[in-house]
Amino acid sequence: MTTAIVPGSFDPITNGHLDIIERATRLFDRIIVAVAVNPSKSPLFTIPERMEMVREVCAHLQNVAVDTFDGLLVDYAARQGARAIIRGLRAISDFEYELQMALTNRRLGPGIETVFMMPGSEYVYLSSSIVKDIARLGGSVEGLVPNSVRQRLRARINLPER
Amino acid sequence: MTTAIVPGSFDPITNGHLDIIERATRLFDRIIVAVAVNPSKSPLFTIPERMEMVREVCAHLQNVAVDTFDGLLVDYAARQGARAIIRGLRAISDFEYELQMALTNRRLGPGIETVFMMPGSEYVYLSSSIVKDIARLGGSVEGLVPNSVRQRLRARINLPER
Amino acid sequence: MTTAIVPGSFDPITNGHLDIIERATRLFDRIIVAVAVNPSKSPLFTIPERMEMVREVCAHLQNVAVDTFDGLLVDYAARQGARAIIRGLRAISDFEYELQMALTNRRLGPGIETVFMMPGSEYVYLSSSIVKDIARLGGSVEGLVPNSVRQRLRARINLPER
Amino acid sequence: MTTAIVPGSFDPITNGHLDIIERATRLFDRIIVAVAVNPSKSPLFTIPERMEMVREVCAHLQNVAVDTFDGLLVDYAARQGARAIIRGLRAISDFEYELQMALTNRRLGPGIETVFMMPGSEYVYLSSSIVKDIARLGGSVEGLVPNSVRQRLRARINLPER
Amino acid sequence: MTTAIVPGSFDPITNGHLDIIERATRLFDRIIVAVAVNPSKSPLFTIPERMEMVREVCAHLQNVAVDTFDGLLVDYAARQGARAIIRGLRAISDFEYELQMALTNRRLGPGIETVFMMPGSEYVYLSSSIVKDIARLGGSVEGLVPNSVRQRLRARINLPER
Amino acid sequence: MTTAIVPGSFDPITNGHLDIIERATRLFDRIIVAVAVNPSKSPLFTIPERMEMVREVCAHLQNVAVDTFDGLLVDYAARQGARAIIRGLRAISDFEYELQMALTNRRLGPGIETVFMMPGSEYVYLSSSIVKDIARLGGSVEGLVPNSVRQRLRARINLPER
Repeated sequence: MTTAIVPGSFDPITNGHLDIIERATRLFDRIIVAVAVNPSKSPLFTIPERMEMVREVCAHLQNVAVDTFDGLLVDYAARQGARAIIRGLRAISDFEYELQMALTNRRLGPGIETVFMMPGSEYVYLSSSIVKDIARLGGSVEGLVPNSVRQRLRARINLPER
Repeated sequence: MTTAIVPGSFDPITNGHLDIIERATRLFDRIIVAVAVNPSKSPLFTIPERMEMVREVCAHLQNVAVDTFDGLLVDYAARQGARAIIRGLRAISDFEYELQMALTNRRLGPGIETVFMMPGSEYVYLSSSIVKDIARLGGSVEGLVPNSVRQRLRARINLPER
Repeated sequence: MTTAIVPGSFDPITNGHLDIIERATRLFDRIIVAVAVNPSKSPLFTIPERMEMVREVCAHLQNVAVDTFDGLLVDYAARQGARAIIRGLRAISDFEYELQMALTNRRLGPGIETVFMMPGSEYVYLSSSIVKDIARLGGSVEGLVPNSVRQRLRARINLPER
Repeated sequence: MTTAIVPGSFDPITNGHLDIIERATRLFDRIIVAVAVNPSKSPLFTIPERMEMVREVCAHLQNVAVDTFDGLLVDYAARQGARAIIRGLRAISDFEYELQMALTNRRLGPGIETVFMMPGSEYVYLSSSIVKDIARLGGSVEGLVPNSVRQRLRARINLPER
Repeated sequence: MTTAIVPGSFDPITNGHLDIIERATRLFDRIIVAVAVNPSKSPLFTIPERMEMVREVCAHLQNVAVDTFDGLLVDYAARQGARAIIRGLRAISDFEYELQMALTNRRLGPGIETVFMMPGSEYVYLSSSIVKDIARLGGSVEGLVPNSVRQRLRARINLPER
Repeated sequence: MTTAIVPGSFDPITNGHLDIIERATRLFDRIIVAVAVNPSKSPLFTIPERMEMVREVCAHLQNVAVDTFDGLLVDYAARQGARAIIRGLRAISDFEYELQMALTNRRLGPGIETVFMMPGSEYVYLSSSIVKDIARLGGSVEGLVPNSVRQRLRARINLPER
């Protein structure tokens, strides 16, 4: 049985993340969506809130578990018996950063492969930051995040109905 | 009559910005230089100061208006009856970010096109941040910003004559 | 009245080209789609065939003319009284090449601006070459080119119905 | 059981290809290395020669089969019941091309995912073309290709012992 | 006698920096490793600590001096009689930034050339930030920084033995 | 005494090449401009013609020699006692290719460093190919190549006076 980790901040989970997770469930036996504890950022949602949102929108996927971790990703992956880390590839700048992370993670945890997957082309430029920026400026995030996430975003930053 | 918006922080306006604005005035009937209110940055100049500098250096251009906006750029553009948003393209990292913004803006305001123009090759790597960094370190910004902007920069950050 | 040129090989015109042309018609008064004579390539369709396909798929656009040119693009643009050359931006490698062309064209014809526009995200990676490759390998090009172009492709390279 | 295809020209297989194949065997149940028939290139080795070289250097890997295909890769993958296409990611220009291919293949064969893996950093810039160029100029390809491939290269292009 | 400057934050010096410095000593008569005073960052080590670490790990290199500077790099280089600024090139995003810096520095100090060198491929993605991130998460930085630097890192951020 | 090689096809030498050569003469004691014999390309000028053009336009530079080589560049560099290979960096696609070449050359000739320099920003997008394309289409190449090269280009491809 092959376990793969989909790590991230998921602050909040977007339709692009969800798309990658769904694609991953068809290739690997067990997927763990792992919400990273990153003390240096100021997140919009707490770790439990982010995990709950992931759980809600992944409820239809049988082989997906939701978890959280701190410390090195490769150590967490090893503890879970995972053989792969899955990352979505969106754009060039992404690619550079992802390659750096992947090479670093390979050095730190040689038995675990980083595997890159591509979201649907409609999500190629989507990120949690863009979603939060749009919401803060009063724009509609419909189609960018699942509906349940949209409602939480609205509640959190007083996003008007529109 | 086609109206186009040239949005930006203009903190302060550089010769690269001015070059793009001048090129745009030859293609579109009316250009609005729109200074963005961006509460999350710590600008060197206030919005009124930035608008005044833009006005000074664009005084020779008949079809240019200077304005400010907050909220979503596409909402502002729609209120102004603009059909195009003009962005200067400088370098690769720029390109990635600009593409992300343009795709997001198209989604939020489908009737408004983002149009990319190229500054003169002498401005290909010029940005407001570089100008401020050079000025703070005591370097000359002659040729990088209009003279009136240079004087204000000197006054603001105690730039010595050199 | 502002005239803009959309130059290209159009061998054949794709839905990505058509998307850019349609967007351009909303910004400029008159659009000339200019099919380039490029003796160094071995095209699939002749210049008259390519012009006919462009004419067919642009028939619904009032302010579009179809033409052909050889020699320098900027000389042709000057003869047409055009103030802008419009290029679609698709991907990074594109961007590099386009920037090189635009800087070269500016040097050769200083009064003519190159303006970059973005096709719909579903066409971000579409090119005439990809379309021909798919067709040659027996794949379906539905949705990648207009229907009339698809029929000509099928006739030209014995593409089976599928 | 998850089957994944590693497609390529393999003209000849390099240590970079082999590295990707080995990494893939740890993630998927069955790997098919599929040598592409590409009539438009002038290969150094015939398809049977390339397949034989792949077979030799993958002999130690239990779950690897070697095959050849022509026509569309996604059609071949579907016939093999494969759920993934594996591509090695080396450098930026690669990335652009790979993304274009992956988006095109997804359109042509929606049920098959393209998965990107990274070779060891010592192979990040290695390609069959570079290997052939070095060999033709009389340089040593030791460490770049498996030994058996090196001997065939030497025989084919009169590479001196050095 | 040609003097070249290797500027940087060196917070702390990594094996990638050291690799570039060693390569530079073979090309130029005198190398000055110049630790930049950058008030806007929050460094992990003080300037004297960083200089001491550089000195320790460069002790075996005859023609290397260690210094610190503030203000414009080109002014410092001119005062030292240097003809070249040496920068390590690691990845694409780097390249963009480095090109911008180099063009700016050329404008500010026309007599001083920026020269780019490449670290060993094992250091292509190494940076001081990555090193600090790994150390903070409890990972091993062995092989990424010289041993003496590793001990200081451990002392500074309570890095456990592992 | 440090010798550096500036290798290339120089078919023909452009102002961008000349700019790099001049900058290199200030950093290294002796510069060899080495015209590569590349049998797989169809050059416009013969090797002796290309060498003669380089010699003419470098006549004012004391420490420049002009030569030709075939086989591996690093072998040639070693025979000349050179410690550095100098390459001009122009654009991103360049950068990728140059990095690949540099890493390959380092592997083949570990004692020889590749050093990248930047041409003046007015030459950032200039290449021999662009020059030949413009000339073939009847455009002016004034300012892109030295005058003596311009005359040879005109003679070779019936470039009209303009």
